[in-house]
Amino acid sequence: MTKKPTTFALRGAVCFSTDSSHLTCLEDAYIVCQNGRTAGVFTELPEQFHGIPCQDFSNCLIIPGMNDLHLHAPQYAFHGMYMDLELLEWLNTVTFPEEARYSDLNYAEKAYSIFADDLKKSATTRASIFGTLHVDATELLMDLMEKTGLKAFIGKINMDRNGSKALQEESAVVSATDTVRWLNDIAGKYENVKPILTPRFTPSCSDELMSRLAEIQRAYCLPVQSHLSENKSEIAWVKELCPNTSFYGEAYDQFGLFGGKTCPTIMAHCVYSSDAELSLMKDRGVFIAHCPQSNTNLSSGIAPVRRYLEEGLHIGLGTDIAGGHSLSMLRAIADAIQVSKLRWRLVDDSQKPLSLEEAFYMATMGGGSFFGKVGTFAEDYEFDALILDDSRLRHPQPLNSRERLERLIYLADDSCIAGKYISGNKIF
Amino acid sequence: MTKKPTTFALRGAVCFSTDSSHLTCLEDAYIVCQNGRTAGVFTELPEQFHGIPCQDFSNCLIIPGMNDLHLHAPQYAFHGMYMDLELLEWLNTVTFPEEARYSDLNYAEKAYSIFADDLKKSATTRASIFGTLHVDATELLMDLMEKTGLKAFIGKINMDRNGSKALQEESAVVSATDTVRWLNDIAGKYENVKPILTPRFTPSCSDELMSRLAEIQRAYCLPVQSHLSENKSEIAWVKELCPNTSFYGEAYDQFGLFGGKTCPTIMAHCVYSSDAELSLMKDRGVFIAHCPQSNTNLSSGIAPVRRYLEEGLHIGLGTDIAGGHSLSMLRAIADAIQVSKLRWRLVDDSQKPLSLEEAFYMATMGGGSFFGKVGTFAEDYEFDALILDDSRLRHPQPLNSRERLERLIYLADDSCIAGKYISGNKIF
Repeated sequence: MTKKPTTFALRGAVCFSTDSSHLTCLEDAYIVCQNGRTAGVFTELPEQFHGIPCQDFSNCLIIPGMNDLHLHAPQYAFHGMYMDLELLEWLNTVTFPEEARYSDLNYAEKAYSIFADDLKKSATTRASIFGTLHVDATELLMDLMEKTGLKAFIGKINMDRNGSKALQEESAVVSATDTVRWLNDIAGKYENVKPILTPRFTPSCSDELMSRLAEIQRAYCLPVQSHLSENKSEIAWVKELCPNTSFYGEAYDQFGLFGGKTCPTIMAHCVYSSDAELSLMKDRGVFIAHCPQSNTNLSSGIAPVRRYLEEGLHIGLGTDIAGGHSLSMLRAIADAIQVSKLRWRLVDDSQKPLSLEEAFYMATMGGGSFFGKVGTFAEDYEFDALILDDSRLRHPQPLNSRERLERLIYLADDSCIAGKYISGNKIF
Repeated sequence: MTKKPTTFALRGAVCFSTDSSHLTCLEDAYIVCQNGRTAGVFTELPEQFHGIPCQDFSNCLIIPGMNDLHLHAPQYAFHGMYMDLELLEWLNTVTFPEEARYSDLNYAEKAYSIFADDLKKSATTRASIFGTLHVDATELLMDLMEKTGLKAFIGKINMDRNGSKALQEESAVVSATDTVRWLNDIAGKYENVKPILTPRFTPSCSDELMSRLAEIQRAYCLPVQSHLSENKSEIAWVKELCPNTSFYGEAYDQFGLFGGKTCPTIMAHCVYSSDAELSLMKDRGVFIAHCPQSNTNLSSGIAPVRRYLEEGLHIGLGTDIAGGHSLSMLRAIADAIQVSKLRWRLVDDSQKPLSLEEAFYMATMGGGSFFGKVGTFAEDYEFDALILDDSRLRHPQPLNSRERLERLIYLADDSCIAGKYISGNKIF
């Protein structure tokens, strides 16, 4: 990683969200970074910045970095494979056996190195990542992710029931003890990565474990990530497991693991959240990680994202590797738009499809706000930027920046990601 | 194009369809090509082939070429853009203005050169392509496509109503006369490309034009391509325009432009075909071009492909550039699977999702049969092959050929297309 200068500028075509339905697109602009934060976006460089280093990306598009709110690092080893199953069968026959392999640190190193390399090259600048239940492998993942320069929350998974012989913690006590050991091991160790409490999902965690995790959450002031209302069979199962709750979200909330001021929380999916669940999420400020590709691949359904945006819920996008097969957050934007069109056509024609502006917002500002002032080029926001080179996508006519952005969202592969900055640090 | 030797072999991992629901996958095999056709696939090279040239692709996967049954060459200029519209609005505000530009041969050359280059590099070996209504630009497109070595049907579009001032033929007579001029111009000119009669769709073609096209079809023994039952507003419009018909397909059939022994026909989309329409398509042997990405982007819906397969209809896949944004037929396979899952979950749970085998079959054998004995490595089939290099898609463990195929279908970009053969000719 190159050491950042205090103040510098990037020049190019620039697109960023101003709110959930508007983009600012400039054909030729300067973005100034001061001490890791955006000082401003200017069509001409103001006098006080004359003489600062300026990198010219005139042939490229500069956009905010992408924030992936939900993905599973160990599952990257089988992304794009074994796609013919639904959630619960897929967990038991594909996912759990693969995750069990991360007890072997040699395997973990091989697999996580590929994951970290590929994520570094992708459009993602910040992410909230599930590991496995293994402390050592999770620490290894954190070591590797730290080196990429990407900012990430990373969680050791907790699961003390309904796993497999090879993939389940012995008891709530063991799970909690391992979690504390993990947190103490890594305390103060990293600049870029931070721990996040990660009960896999309600079917994987006994009430006793949830109680112990809640204590740990409070003691260590940890954020939380888990899964919610992804699949109808899963929801029915949670109802059986937690007869005292009236909806899935309460299974987390009853232990204090569902948002609120001291417990920032990401819940992945929310395809079938009830009115009461949504109302509680809104009260608690829970972040929804919308994962359109995963919800398609696992035949889960299509989340009513239009409604979530209209009701002002916190919402970002997740690739959900490996329910989702693509690590690309640009692809996640396109997928979110596409499935919203099918939902409008096939399920509910009162909820119009997402616009490019709205889906882009979710991938940048929407998810970014989980990480602080992140996700746009407004003043004082963390300077996370992607340099996108669309020269390979030839076109017979000049295009404006909005057209170039749309084309990159639908057509870019990693070879278009020409550069990346995070908090002002040049990643490549 | 390299001149083919009479007999040669390729060696590598091999996958190909044996029927609509089965794949043959071999970890290390030889495919022998004799005079442009497959002589056989062997795990050891039989004695009679000892000494023939053999190209070793041991690190690659060798699969049959992909047959794209439906795409619009002029629309490639805006693929991946202007995605927030439905079919009829999109035609009027985006598509027709762009297609009108192909009256300028300089623009056509610039745009079609990009299209031909990119299609050459893609997974597609054969295609059925719409041009524009312009004779000169369509001939230019045919010249450029001829040079790629790809096999293609290419159609000058007919449209004498409901276009725009800039994009509509003056009359049925002019449209028919231009079509004859085009056919005479190109007679005997090409080895790889052939003409296909291309009435845009019923709303674009008057009855008089359809009658004249039917005469041309018979006189020149041409195949036909058009659009069918893509969007509900379109279907309602056709009902108004053709009050004498009981379903959309009859609007073509009443003029003899809907399949049958002497009129091989591709109809794109068939999202909302009625029982009667399907029954007639089956009788007439009409090929369905299923275009899942386009049907998503234009909010058209999801075609009931499971039913089409079960009823034994001819069906292949189309990218439908630029309703679809990706030129990749591998992506079309993944898209077909994905939307079939959403249809199963959201529309009709009696029609189970497509398997990888079924979607792969549609892209290879299903569509291939429109071109003859094309789409698999069975004996005497045209030797169309793709060499897929998956070394860039790193993995911590060895994978078998079926796993590698699935991963490439979900994750490959053009950089994975390492080689291509068509009728035994090496394209690159």
